[in-house]
Amino acid sequence: MLTRIDHIGIACHDLDTTVEFYRTTYGFEVFHTEVNEEQGVREAMLKINETSDGGASYLQLLEPTREDSAVGKWLAKNGEGVHHIAFGTADVDADAAGIRDKGVRVLYDEPRIGSMGSRITFLHPKDCHGVLTELVTSAAVESPEH
Amino acid sequence: MLTRIDHIGIACHDLDTTVEFYRTTYGFEVFHTEVNEEQGVREAMLKINETSDGGASYLQLLEPTREDSAVGKWLAKNGEGVHHIAFGTADVDADAAGIRDKGVRVLYDEPRIGSMGSRITFLHPKDCHGVLTELVTSAAVESPEH
Repeated sequence: MLTRIDHIGIACHDLDTTVEFYRTTYGFEVFHTEVNEEQGVREAMLKINETSDGGASYLQLLEPTREDSAVGKWLAKNGEGVHHIAFGTADVDADAAGIRDKGVRVLYDEPRIGSMGSRITFLHPKDCHGVLTELVTSAAVESPEH
Repeated sequence: MLTRIDHIGIACHDLDTTVEFYRTTYGFEVFHTEVNEEQGVREAMLKINETSDGGASYLQLLEPTREDSAVGKWLAKNGEGVHHIAFGTADVDADAAGIRDKGVRVLYDEPRIGSMGSRITFLHPKDCHGVLTELVTSAAVESPEH
């Protein structure tokens, strides 16, 4: 069961510049940064609010680490902007299986590792009215790690 | 001060079909529907979670009521997908003024009426790393109105 907007993924050319924009314009601070080599991104998570399911909503700023990564190719085609949205669930495996059974293409056979040790999968945007949609189950313990 | 992700605005060709997709795929139910003639949209708000500032986060599904509306033109160019993101604040006037002072273009001189009687304004996407960004102050009392 999807119980929150977990994050909005935003692709950018330069992570440091974009983090600085969000900090100076809105006062949003970096909660966590990491490099995900499998996804080919360097990212910053900005925590915006906590949510009624015990989780939180973030902006996820994404800079590609290589041009041939999914985000790199998307950025070359579309320019900077919203790359995907993510819903939080306590059980990404069960939700992905249920959604696959409804005929929506799930992009990974098994969930992979996302931000902050979460387990994630993606749904094909052509099956989701143009929206690349991620499902995410957070790691058990979330704490700021800069 | 921006204290929550208020909503993600998603442009679609057919509101009823898209609402049905979100209901059958994820179990998200319609919280509110309305037509905003000024914005040129017919919309459905799907409430996803409540937020730590006392508000909530929604998906806002948007179908243009006329081709020459902002959403209609965007949809003709981009196809279905994420149209904008919105941050919630207790004081959209103060936040819009502060952000304008930082050199970001605010699209309205004064906030206009958005979903469910809220007061809204937009920031120019070219000043926001490609993200059309809305600021929204909810009406004092929120209750489901179908």
